[in-house]
Amino acid sequence: MIYIFFLLSFIIMRFLSFHCEYFRYKTTKRSRSKVFEDLTEKNKEGSLENSIVFFISIEKQDENDNQILQKCINEIEKITSQLKVSNIVLLSFAHLFGELSSPEFGLSALKDIETLLSEKFEILRPPFGWFNELELKAKGHPLSRISRKIN
Amino acid sequence: MIYIFFLLSFIIMRFLSFHCEYFRYKTTKRSRSKVFEDLTEKNKEGSLENSIVFFISIEKQDENDNQILQKCINEIEKITSQLKVSNIVLLSFAHLFGELSSPEFGLSALKDIETLLSEKFEILRPPFGWFNELELKAKGHPLSRISRKIN
Repeated sequence: MIYIFFLLSFIIMRFLSFHCEYFRYKTTKRSRSKVFEDLTEKNKEGSLENSIVFFISIEKQDENDNQILQKCINEIEKITSQLKVSNIVLLSFAHLFGELSSPEFGLSALKDIETLLSEKFEILRPPFGWFNELELKAKGHPLSRISRKIN
Repeated sequence: MIYIFFLLSFIIMRFLSFHCEYFRYKTTKRSRSKVFEDLTEKNKEGSLENSIVFFISIEKQDENDNQILQKCINEIEKITSQLKVSNIVLLSFAHLFGELSSPEFGLSALKDIETLLSEKFEILRPPFGWFNELELKAKGHPLSRISRKIN
């Protein structure tokens, strides 16, 4: 309970989602971030079919909203439920026009989101701190692209 | 000259760019926008290799900045020049967290941007007012994804 409360204490985020027939990534080189995850045989590339790809940025603002992570999980679950999709890609993405958190905090938050979602969903999370080639086919229905600010 | 001045008078925008080995689209169904372009054999689907895909949203704010369209063209040309790419995809995109212009104005602005760029570049512009399937392979170098607010 204390752990969950801590998770909920300091996070705000925004995301852009693409509903994809397939999604594949392959890490290429280190990004400029000093914080990064080590590459392994398991995480250096990956793919997931019929998935919702969440391009997520974790941000500095509104760090005092205790409900923000739960709102984020709720919003993700609302979208996956509407689209009847149980495969999720969580891709750290710095280009959504917000003010980013520290990379340490960003990585920690993404891991927490992954942990909280992993009971219900198949999750693919490319490693933090790396550039990636991305290959995808996004569907063309009315909810195929969605953006949300969680605040 | 008067035409160019008119073009420059009322536009602000933001974009997200993906440098892609290939990009393909196929229109599916009408979006909710009342403003739309008619489908033809030529525009209902398309593809472009080694292109920069600009996901663009035209916005309401700062309509009085006379320089904004020229700044936008400059910004696009800076990126294409850095990446040595002469193929551009202009994709109207409502999900970049800004306050959108009217659809009439958005379409008009996109057409103007296309016109101004078409002397130097090969342009692919999916028709306005339609949902699309999108298939792409984005490269994994440091400038493969960029976002810009033009203001």
